[in-house]
Formats: sequence, structure tokens, C-alpha cells
Amino acid sequence: MAPILGAPTPQAWVQQAVEGWRELLVDHANCEKKAASTALALMFAYPEQSHLCSALSRLAREELRHFEQVRGLMHTLGVPWQRQQPGRYAVGLRAALRSHEPQRQLDLLLCGALIEARSAERFELLAAQPALPPPMARLYATLAVSEARHHELYVDLARNAAADWQERLAELVGLEAQLASSPDEQLRFHSGPCCTAPR
Amino acid sequence: MAPILGAPTPQAWVQQAVEGWRELLVDHANCEKKAASTALALMFAYPEQSHLCSALSRLAREELRHFEQVRGLMHTLGVPWQRQQPGRYAVGLRAALRSHEPQRQLDLLLCGALIEARSAERFELLAAQPALPPPMARLYATLAVSEARHHELYVDLARNAAADWQERLAELVGLEAQLASSPDEQLRFHSGPCCTAPR
Repeated sequence: MAPILGAPTPQAWVQQAVEGWRELLVDHANCEKKAASTALALMFAYPEQSHLCSALSRLAREELRHFEQVRGLMHTLGVPWQRQQPGRYAVGLRAALRSHEPQRQLDLLLCGALIEARSAERFELLAAQPALPPPMARLYATLAVSEARHHELYVDLARNAAADWQERLAELVGLEAQLASSPDEQLRFHSGPCCTAPR
Repeated sequence: MAPILGAPTPQAWVQQAVEGWRELLVDHANCEKKAASTALALMFAYPEQSHLCSALSRLAREELRHFEQVRGLMHTLGVPWQRQQPGRYAVGLRAALRSHEPQRQLDLLLCGALIEARSAERFELLAAQPALPPPMARLYATLAVSEARHHELYVDLARNAAADWQERLAELVGLEAQLASSPDEQLRFHSGPCCTAPR
């Protein structure tokens, strides 16, 4: 578990994710697209911050590359695209964002750091599951490394953005841990364990 | 001039662009970012269209790479980022988008094709200007090739989207030509010639 995370992913989620890997893969493709979109939104919101813009542009390119890899994997493994209801995780984190600057930017960067840290943790967990289709496990092993690097970038940007970043991070860590580990209504890449059986 | 364009860029615009290259470069960085954002918006709007999503993801990655190159060039040439008022071109094209599907998708793809075609034409024109800073002329020569390829991709996607794509294209070609060649209030990468002196 990355040191930033407040709670490990429950074993129940891992078991459900392996059983429901097809549904997970569709959600994962959406997550990569959203990760690129989030980075681009930060570039539009803070165009005067040259280092942030260049770093997040590179990050967005990597997320899009991952999106293409996941869509390719869906094709290889015969998983059709399907519309999914939005999960609880992103909505829950978004609700915690403060609306005024410079607090909003700090919150956006810290949420980015937490999402990437959770992603890295789960890719690593899933890559080690022998019941996962081997091409998926192989991709997830490589993605774990990328997402850990993205987590570090977001932490660096947050450190540059505000002196009190660690106090705010401590607050958001608790919220993220609750969203990722408590019983959830849907199985998603960033959900808690699902309280209904996975499809 | 790409065969799709209804009017060539006026010589007056080229002269003003060379004189106002600093302002143009800042606008150009924004255009690359917006081009990536437009491609991503199409991926969010039509997630079930697998070929479109993968192709536009690759296109968005290229646009982001161009954004990074332009920001790097701004740094090299000592051009600071500055906030700019939005130009007439994108607003004018957006106003022509139909609101209902499947017409909206066709219009979005055709506007994408026209913007990329105009970009390719102007990069080629500017790359041949001896008064432009040499590193900028060199970058523009390479971008002309990429944007011509993007234009072709958007045309291919439009062709797949609707049988009557050529009729609608003919309508939008006229609008685009008018926006890119008639006197404009601001000097922008896609503007007409500016009716006030460039900064």
C-alpha cells in the first residue's frame, strides 16, 4: 500500500474484481479517459503555471495511451463496451473540493494524488491474481508503475501549491479510505467491496 | 491550400502573423490544448464508437505533444504566457453546430476537419516566412504535416458518420472561409486579417 493511503483495499474487493473482471475492465477504460480529462481541466484552469501545464500534459498523454491499451485489451478478450452508472468514489471526492482559490487547486491536486495512489495499489494487487486473464495481469503490472509515478507528480504539485498541503491531505486521506473500503452498491475500479454479487 | 478549404489565407494575415509572432505563439499553445480537449469531448460523447475513440485518443496525444513543444518554444524565445480574449473563429464555428444527433456528431467532425485543414495551411505558409524566428519556422514545418493528417482523419470519421456528409461540408466550408479571411478584430492563429495594427 502506498504510504499516502489511509486504508488498504479489502480482500473482498480483490476477489470480486477478479470474478467481475469484464465489468471492471470497462470501468477501467473510462477511468483512464477521465484521468486524462482531469489533467486537461487543470491545464485549462491554471494556464499561467507553466511547470504544472507541461507536467500534466505529459501525464494526460500517458493516461490516453493507457486508455488505448485497455480498449485494445477489451477487443482481445472479447469484452464489449457498455454504459455503466457512475460510481460513488469520484462523486464522493468531488463533493469535498473547496470552491475558492487557492484551496480549490490544492484539493484538486491532492485528490489526483489519492486517486493515482489507489490505482497503483489496486493494479499491483490485481497483477498478482492468478485467476485474472494473463494479458490483463501483465498490463496491470506495468500500469502500477506508471500510476505510482503519477501519484508522486501530483504530490509534488500539491507541495508547490500550498504550505499547508499536509494538513489538508490528512483530511482527504480519511475520506478516500472510507470511499475505497466501505461496502458499496456497485463494483468499480475505485469502489469499496460490493454488497451485491458482481455480474 | 488543402482542397477542403473555401478560401486561401489572405496575404495580409501572413504579414501580420509574422510581425505579431509572439502573440500568435501564445494563441497557438491554447489552440493545441483546445484541439486535445475537443478530441476528448468527442470520446466522452460517443464512447460506444470504438474506432473513433481510439483514433481520437491518438490524435489528442499528438496535440498535447504539440502543446508541450509550443510551450517549450515560448520558453526558448522568451515569450511569456498571457491571457488572451477568445477569437471569433471557434465561436463562429460553434454557433453553426446543430443540436440534435446524429447531425451534431457530423458537424463536430466536419468542424474538426476544417480547423485542422486551416491549421495545416497556415503552418505551411508561416514555415516559409524568412522573418519568422527559425526555431518557430522549423516547428511549423513539422506541424503542417501532422495537422494535414489530422484533417484526413476527421474527414474519414465524418464519412463514416453520415451519408450526406459532403452536402453539409459544403455549407460549413463557406462559413469557415469567411471566418478565416474577412477582416477581424483580433490577430489569432485562425482569425482573418486584423483591422487594427498587431501588437
